[in-house]
Amino acid sequence: MPFIAVHAGAGKFNEEDVKELKSVCRLACDKAMVKLKDGCDVSEAITVAISALENSPLTNCGTGSCLTYKGTAECDASIINGKGDFASVGAVSGVKNPIVLAHQLLLNQSKGLMSLGRIPPMCLCGDGAHQWAIENGVPVCNPDDLITEEAKEVYLDHIERLRREDAKEGSEQCAAKRRKVNDSQSKLDTVGAVCIDANGLIGAGVSSGGISLKHTGRIGQAGVYRCGCWAKRHSDSSQIASSASGVGEYLIKTQLAKEITTSLVGQSVTIQNAFHQTFLDNVILAGCNTKEAGVLVLHVSPSGSIELSWVHSTDDMLIAYNSNDKSKSFMSQLEEKAVPGIRTTAGWLSF
Amino acid sequence: MPFIAVHAGAGKFNEEDVKELKSVCRLACDKAMVKLKDGCDVSEAITVAISALENSPLTNCGTGSCLTYKGTAECDASIINGKGDFASVGAVSGVKNPIVLAHQLLLNQSKGLMSLGRIPPMCLCGDGAHQWAIENGVPVCNPDDLITEEAKEVYLDHIERLRREDAKEGSEQCAAKRRKVNDSQSKLDTVGAVCIDANGLIGAGVSSGGISLKHTGRIGQAGVYRCGCWAKRHSDSSQIASSASGVGEYLIKTQLAKEITTSLVGQSVTIQNAFHQTFLDNVILAGCNTKEAGVLVLHVSPSGSIELSWVHSTDDMLIAYNSNDKSKSFMSQLEEKAVPGIRTTAGWLSF
Repeated sequence: MPFIAVHAGAGKFNEEDVKELKSVCRLACDKAMVKLKDGCDVSEAITVAISALENSPLTNCGTGSCLTYKGTAECDASIINGKGDFASVGAVSGVKNPIVLAHQLLLNQSKGLMSLGRIPPMCLCGDGAHQWAIENGVPVCNPDDLITEEAKEVYLDHIERLRREDAKEGSEQCAAKRRKVNDSQSKLDTVGAVCIDANGLIGAGVSSGGISLKHTGRIGQAGVYRCGCWAKRHSDSSQIASSASGVGEYLIKTQLAKEITTSLVGQSVTIQNAFHQTFLDNVILAGCNTKEAGVLVLHVSPSGSIELSWVHSTDDMLIAYNSNDKSKSFMSQLEEKAVPGIRTTAGWLSF
Repeated sequence: MPFIAVHAGAGKFNEEDVKELKSVCRLACDKAMVKLKDGCDVSEAITVAISALENSPLTNCGTGSCLTYKGTAECDASIINGKGDFASVGAVSGVKNPIVLAHQLLLNQSKGLMSLGRIPPMCLCGDGAHQWAIENGVPVCNPDDLITEEAKEVYLDHIERLRREDAKEGSEQCAAKRRKVNDSQSKLDTVGAVCIDANGLIGAGVSSGGISLKHTGRIGQAGVYRCGCWAKRHSDSSQIASSASGVGEYLIKTQLAKEITTSLVGQSVTIQNAFHQTFLDNVILAGCNTKEAGVLVLHVSPSGSIELSWVHSTDDMLIAYNSNDKSKSFMSQLEEKAVPGIRTTAGWLSF
């Protein structure tokens, strides 16, 4: 029964990083599977897996996050289980593993009301989230410890290009010629995990360093309920969980993680069609460009059979999984010359 | 066609404040209606109305907000229109009118992509939100300027009770005896507005100082998409908007503002039944106490006829409206001896 899968984000990967990233993703699954076999619960396994991804300088979360316009690292993360327990952190600095902070918030909620009947917080952001980490024994660090040399280099390059572009724009007002900041030099988006534990409870999580040069304080889908991750145990005892990656503001508007599962459950719709309905063709995104996203979905039937499926409108999506055996990893790619944000590719594995 | 309605929160009001609060709510509607008659758009009218509520020391938003555990004022606010434009701020300090900041974020999005193809932020929190306000001409203030003498008194009383309770709990572990902090001495929750402008576009907004003694950085429903406010223009050209007030964490989990409108549109369901389905009887809140909330809904038919309806499980909900005439205000109340969080009351007006 225990099963874990992770993704390193939906985007466009640098070829030279892929081998190591695959290895990082398999390691994340290995670590989580050890925990799952020990009987740990789904949220702990997700936290272990995503922590491993956060600790890799190659992923855009935790250590190695994209930098803000001010040159700081600010992270979003969230976690959910099929019982409906959820916690998130947004724009938090100086916390080594943002997913650990989200997990601790989740655990704290399970203790019930605080003194004077206060309801434990579900979403914490910024300095207050950092302060809560200190008070609750979640490891904190110097905010600069999350900044890698490579992230700094990319930041300086982006800032320089921004200055050139802004100067040009001041004289030419040529907004139409704007180039995207998230090109090949940029980090990919939100990483995440979907999981079912030995007790048969499903869950999901996400973690993100956000977009390069974002304004400080900006929260993307990884910090917002229903948008970055989703999990639900249905009344027929089937369960579904998802973890979404992509352009944060669009994933919030479409509540992609939740809505794609609603389209899939109990309906004879492919994940590709569900992705088109809920995201690419969603009227709420009419007029938006760069509709780049990807979703990893775990579906467990009442009998316990497991299906892992994925879909993305980005060039690449890197996935690894462990079904109580050896971890495997693979890259899903759009067909050659297909336009990201318009075309999609999808796949599935059954266990 | 232009119509504006506001609420001063769903909760339990101090009798001595009610007269002035009603006057504040009518003034908010008056100000917005002047703007609406001048042809201003729905989001501007909402901002004018909610700013008037924020400026009153009697409401739990802007000036007079409940204080955090650290004694600071941190505000959430969001705004949405029927076209799907949305912006929110969370846990922001030192901004005189948080709704003005949310509105400015909304306007900023309409300018399209920023240089280098960056997507304008939709959700900003904490210091980053304050910084964005400064950079974009949104009036800021000394963080202490939002703290009223009364809020400070309530804070000191709550802190003292918390210390006593925590000491007692340390010795007796009597969690069952915990008293609620949001008793008669506490401020009520999120205020908000629903509106349709002269051009026939609907919208909604909310603003909140959050719960007394909340952890710094905590974001409640007023800062989260779909949870505090919602507005949508449907394909049959009917439009619906809502503004929700109550226990933030529960309103986020149920996405109350959005979900109650989904239950109402195209279905022969009363607002009271819709509230039970989406909130009180929602399985996601199984085991939760204090299910206190209220929602104000504006429904405009394809022919332009307007229905304003409301429902709450709190003792009171204070509402005012202006249908292009003189502003009117009223208090909706649970029947005597009905238990808040379990029983509801509802009503509607047609125009």
